[in-house]
Amino acid sequence: MRAELAFNFETYHADRQKLIEKRLAQYLASDDPSNLWESMRYSVLSGGKRIRATLCLAAAEAVEASGLGQSDGGFDALSTALPCACAIEMVHAMSLMHDDLPCMDDDDFRRGKPSNHKVFGEAIALLAGDNLLVYAFETILAHTQAVDLSKTLLVCRELAAATGARGMVGGQVLDMALTGQGASLATTEQNAHQLSQILSQIHERKTGALIRFSVWSGACLMGASDNTLVRLGRFGEILGLSFQIADDLLDVSGDIKTLGKTPGKDQASGKLTWISAYGEEAARQKLNELEAEGQELLKQSELTESALKPLNSLLSYAIRRTH
Amino acid sequence: MRAELAFNFETYHADRQKLIEKRLAQYLASDDPSNLWESMRYSVLSGGKRIRATLCLAAAEAVEASGLGQSDGGFDALSTALPCACAIEMVHAMSLMHDDLPCMDDDDFRRGKPSNHKVFGEAIALLAGDNLLVYAFETILAHTQAVDLSKTLLVCRELAAATGARGMVGGQVLDMALTGQGASLATTEQNAHQLSQILSQIHERKTGALIRFSVWSGACLMGASDNTLVRLGRFGEILGLSFQIADDLLDVSGDIKTLGKTPGKDQASGKLTWISAYGEEAARQKLNELEAEGQELLKQSELTESALKPLNSLLSYAIRRTH
Repeated sequence: MRAELAFNFETYHADRQKLIEKRLAQYLASDDPSNLWESMRYSVLSGGKRIRATLCLAAAEAVEASGLGQSDGGFDALSTALPCACAIEMVHAMSLMHDDLPCMDDDDFRRGKPSNHKVFGEAIALLAGDNLLVYAFETILAHTQAVDLSKTLLVCRELAAATGARGMVGGQVLDMALTGQGASLATTEQNAHQLSQILSQIHERKTGALIRFSVWSGACLMGASDNTLVRLGRFGEILGLSFQIADDLLDVSGDIKTLGKTPGKDQASGKLTWISAYGEEAARQKLNELEAEGQELLKQSELTESALKPLNSLLSYAIRRTH
Repeated sequence: MRAELAFNFETYHADRQKLIEKRLAQYLASDDPSNLWESMRYSVLSGGKRIRATLCLAAAEAVEASGLGQSDGGFDALSTALPCACAIEMVHAMSLMHDDLPCMDDDDFRRGKPSNHKVFGEAIALLAGDNLLVYAFETILAHTQAVDLSKTLLVCRELAAATGARGMVGGQVLDMALTGQGASLATTEQNAHQLSQILSQIHERKTGALIRFSVWSGACLMGASDNTLVRLGRFGEILGLSFQIADDLLDVSGDIKTLGKTPGKDQASGKLTWISAYGEEAARQKLNELEAEGQELLKQSELTESALKPLNSLLSYAIRRTH
């Protein structure tokens, strides 16, 4: 019903954010040992925009609102997908905690606040990250009530794939290797295509795999068909890539107040980004192409147009956000 | 049949070690990205004694050889438990990799070889540890053929519990907090009991939880009864504690060649151990009590005496090993 009324993305997003924040706070309410959980809460409950978790909920809701899937077992979309949505935010937060450590990016600030290890020390930041990774799986396993056990198992398996060597961690390793090559990767007309290929591979793993998983898992838990899952998975990849290009554009055009982190850092460190490989104008053009491709994929799915409004709006948001 | 012949623990252990090594090498055969997997293989395939994995196999075999459990679905004990046994070794290896990092114990050697981060760098050692943690779950989820899906999910959930705040990671945090207190914890007759309580709590989580899980999971996957699972879980706790006390004794009586690590390091750093809290003689006495308790628990289980020989021998081994 809701999806058939005039759709207001800001209200939709704010409502989902509230649900996610509340549930995350419940899952992270432990105090044993106290500094470990404080450290976890510091990074997870730091008021992010919860795009990944919202994507998971939105995909589950789209299947439900289309009257598809096997979701007639009394499980509504939000209750079914919330544990998985929260798990995704835990994995995302732990990746930032470990990335910020001195042996990695050595970043003292995150979202406008001191990084986790600046507050709790490196050892606790390391262990709290380890624990979040494990706790993400535990959260799904302990709290998911999906249409059947095999879906829960499949979702855990795909989360592992999205997080591990073929996903987030592997992308981070490839990114470090590339950054190490420094000046030898200066863009010329001859190697621009090659560089954009390398960048795509890195981003598909480092950030894309978890975003793809966010969309896919919400629909999977609601029992969506294989056909719909394939389209939504690809939509997630498109959205992840859009997100990354928009992020690179923000690094050159944003300021510390809206970004919550030091702008121009990527450029200053000589890091290969979409801007350094393509230039700003071509990056903006690429974003437009991705938006059209993402919209087309949603049209090709079995989901109804009104049920797809949140996912469509999330794509626009990823592309047009200013921070 | 095998268990009814004269039982030779060394042969039994060597055979299981070979199976585990071979399977671990198969699971870790990937090369994408190459340095990440090399780093993982360096630490996982470094020739440990595989006590945890062997315990998992031995518990599964004990259920099978007793003709108990629901193991008549064509799944033999070794095939059923091997993925989980390997996952346990991955979790154990990652905990050592992260523990050795400069921001933690800052140890340059492990098992007589340079620590992972001395070979691959801190960033890769960190990420390879993260990946091993995730890959442990993926290994169980992708390769386990248990009596039913609910057992596989339960085992993943318990692995998360054994690894996270209530287990290994939480124990590490408590241990760090205690070590930080230094001299204020000097043992007196008055606080000896209190210190031994604190030590028990730390070890039950830091090393005990994963060892308990090793025994419990092998039996669980074979469909053992709740009664047997409770006894074996407690047996695992006893064995884990024995292992730790024996380890502390080795730290004062071993040498670098047999230990593969610097002896006397715990004592030199003023770390609270069973020896510093109790003294050497009382620690040896405690080990004898634990052995008797462990043997009694096995007797009380529904498993046959001959089927229990490997588990009984593993307890003796934990207590009497010299390295």
